Amino acid sequence: MSPLELERNESWLSREELEAVRGRLPILYVDAVPVRVDSTGAATAVGLLLRASSDGSINRELVSGRVLYHERVRDALLRHLEKDLGPMCLPRVPASPQPFTVAEYFPTPGVTPYHDPRQHAVSLAFVVPVAGDCEPQQDALDLAWLTLDEAADPSLLQDMGGGHGVLLRQALAHLGHAV
Amino acid sequence: MSPLELERNESWLSREELEAVRGRLPILYVDAVPVRVDSTGAATAVGLLLRASSDGSINRELVSGRVLYHERVRDALLRHLEKDLGPMCLPRVPASPQPFTVAEYFPTPGVTPYHDPRQHAVSLAFVVPVAGDCEPQQDALDLAWLTLDEAADPSLLQDMGGGHGVLLRQALAHLGHAV
Amino acid sequence: MSPLELERNESWLSREELEAVRGRLPILYVDAVPVRVDSTGAATAVGLLLRASSDGSINRELVSGRVLYHERVRDALLRHLEKDLGPMCLPRVPASPQPFTVAEYFPTPGVTPYHDPRQHAVSLAFVVPVAGDCEPQQDALDLAWLTLDEAADPSLLQDMGGGHGVLLRQALAHLGHAV
Amino acid sequence: MSPLELERNESWLSREELEAVRGRLPILYVDAVPVRVDSTGAATAVGLLLRASSDGSINRELVSGRVLYHERVRDALLRHLEKDLGPMCLPRVPASPQPFTVAEYFPTPGVTPYHDPRQHAVSLAFVVPVAGDCEPQQDALDLAWLTLDEAADPSLLQDMGGGHGVLLRQALAHLGHAV
Repeated sequence: MSPLELERNESWLSREELEAVRGRLPILYVDAVPVRVDSTGAATAVGLLLRASSDGSINRELVSGRVLYHERVRDALLRHLEKDLGPMCLPRVPASPQPFTVAEYFPTPGVTPYHDPRQHAVSLAFVVPVAGDCEPQQDALDLAWLTLDEAADPSLLQDMGGGHGVLLRQALAHLGHAV
Repeated sequence: MSPLELERNESWLSREELEAVRGRLPILYVDAVPVRVDSTGAATAVGLLLRASSDGSINRELVSGRVLYHERVRDALLRHLEKDLGPMCLPRVPASPQPFTVAEYFPTPGVTPYHDPRQHAVSLAFVVPVAGDCEPQQDALDLAWLTLDEAADPSLLQDMGGGHGVLLRQALAHLGHAV
Repeated sequence: MSPLELERNESWLSREELEAVRGRLPILYVDAVPVRVDSTGAATAVGLLLRASSDGSINRELVSGRVLYHERVRDALLRHLEKDLGPMCLPRVPASPQPFTVAEYFPTPGVTPYHDPRQHAVSLAFVVPVAGDCEPQQDALDLAWLTLDEAADPSLLQDMGGGHGVLLRQALAHLGHAV
Repeated sequence: MSPLELERNESWLSREELEAVRGRLPILYVDAVPVRVDSTGAATAVGLLLRASSDGSINRELVSGRVLYHERVRDALLRHLEKDLGPMCLPRVPASPQPFTVAEYFPTPGVTPYHDPRQHAVSLAFVVPVAGDCEPQQDALDLAWLTLDEAADPSLLQDMGGGHGVLLRQALAHLGHAV
């Protein structure tokens, strides 16, 4: 991470402050679709987090999170990947800052295919090969590696809230896979 | 790709020469997904060609064709769009040469999601807004404008041969639409 | 980014609130490189704003501004283009949400090639063809259309603050032009 | 490489056949810009080949070569990278087939910034991180790793023929670097 990261902590928002800002400004996020690749660089599997939602159901999710003040986008990607997949996951964040898409999560459903009732979040989405050992961290119950064909199964969409299923399929399309 | 493309006069290879080369080299193609856009630039409809295939069935197709010797990629896109949609279709070929994907059509099915029994074709794929009047030309029976939701209907895949259905869905994903 | 942007009425934050947030969160921006295109879609000219900066010097700038709460990225692009180039500029915002790059403006110089002393801004950058009549609005003194060769002249870099010169050259590279 | 590669050899063109085709069809190429990346994925160095040209001068070149019949683009990238940088260079070919640009080399100078007197070549260009040991192979005299700032030095352009200097600078721009 950036050498300036320590200074950044001083600028973190309290929970209350963040709540207040969330209704006033679009919040910058990153979404990462973790993949395993073969020796030719082709994706062979997609990693999805299994997470208990607040209503007790189980959701499949992509790696996702906020970009902090004075944090580079690639450092935010690394931080969220290591937080969710563990410190040994060895993400290979792409060299270019160009995301494969930008997902606009609106608090109002239906404006875009993405929805976040808490806020207006705009997320830079990247496919990130991970080369190391992954083990789910924190509140994630499990990490599932699906083949690209399994990940493209439409039935998966109903297990992925907020538009993560749509984003996953857009990532598969970007990888050249049939969706 | 159009089955009648071989008959085009502007090809600098005779039919026999092209046949001979087709088994020896990958042939460069362009694929265009014609769209209508609203005043904010968002795509509202996708144009598909209705074409009678050699076995009598009706296929839906994208605009597709070969890049000629000493022809720029953007000129090839224009030529094929005007050939299929008519001279008044007013295509807005993107300013950047970066395609949204590269579709590799192999003569052997299953290597990629794209297939062309005649040849190994590698196609640069672009979404191209068209602003003018479109009327199907030559061997195309009709041109259908579908909403993005209609275009994303999986049942369409079986009417689109060679992987054009997959490419259409990848284009929709690139446009930020749910697929 | 325009130094007068803070005065815009449509912002949902007061000037004081925005100042407070600017030191705590990355702020989402869009940057637009306006271009004229020929009938094949190739860019032929780049539009730069001539603007008096607060210290009395004259700067050349790209179109740039904040994305508001509950505003789509493409609507923010349209709003800023019409604000700076006039209501008849007829921008053709790209159909895909994928920016050609993401420019990270840090308040600390040197972290990236982009710098904004007021804030940490993360900007989605797009090349946008404009088809209509452009006339500079508000505080912009003039609008200059430069050929791509003129726009690629390194001497222009010193007239463009905050990294806009770098972003302009990255846009030219994305367009396939020599830089 | 592809399991079908052995069959492909039967379809290789003789030198005479290739010469004949080169004046009739655009030939599909790949260009690779090899980079070293740090633990955050950011590029830190660019690898350039030092090669003696036929007229005795020394040129700096990117990795470049033809795509063969029935060869996937990513297999062509791997083959050319391993041919030029050695079998232990461990290239990480991007997971997506989307190139950062398409370079059109025309036999006529001035049509595009790229030029190849032998042929009309259309090249899919990728930035490829290489993680292993690189040693120049075959006719390459040396391999030089340059920092991104060194690679962006305009004086390098005159040592890189055919537009490779332009393509290198476009790659740096795509990586978010100042050019």
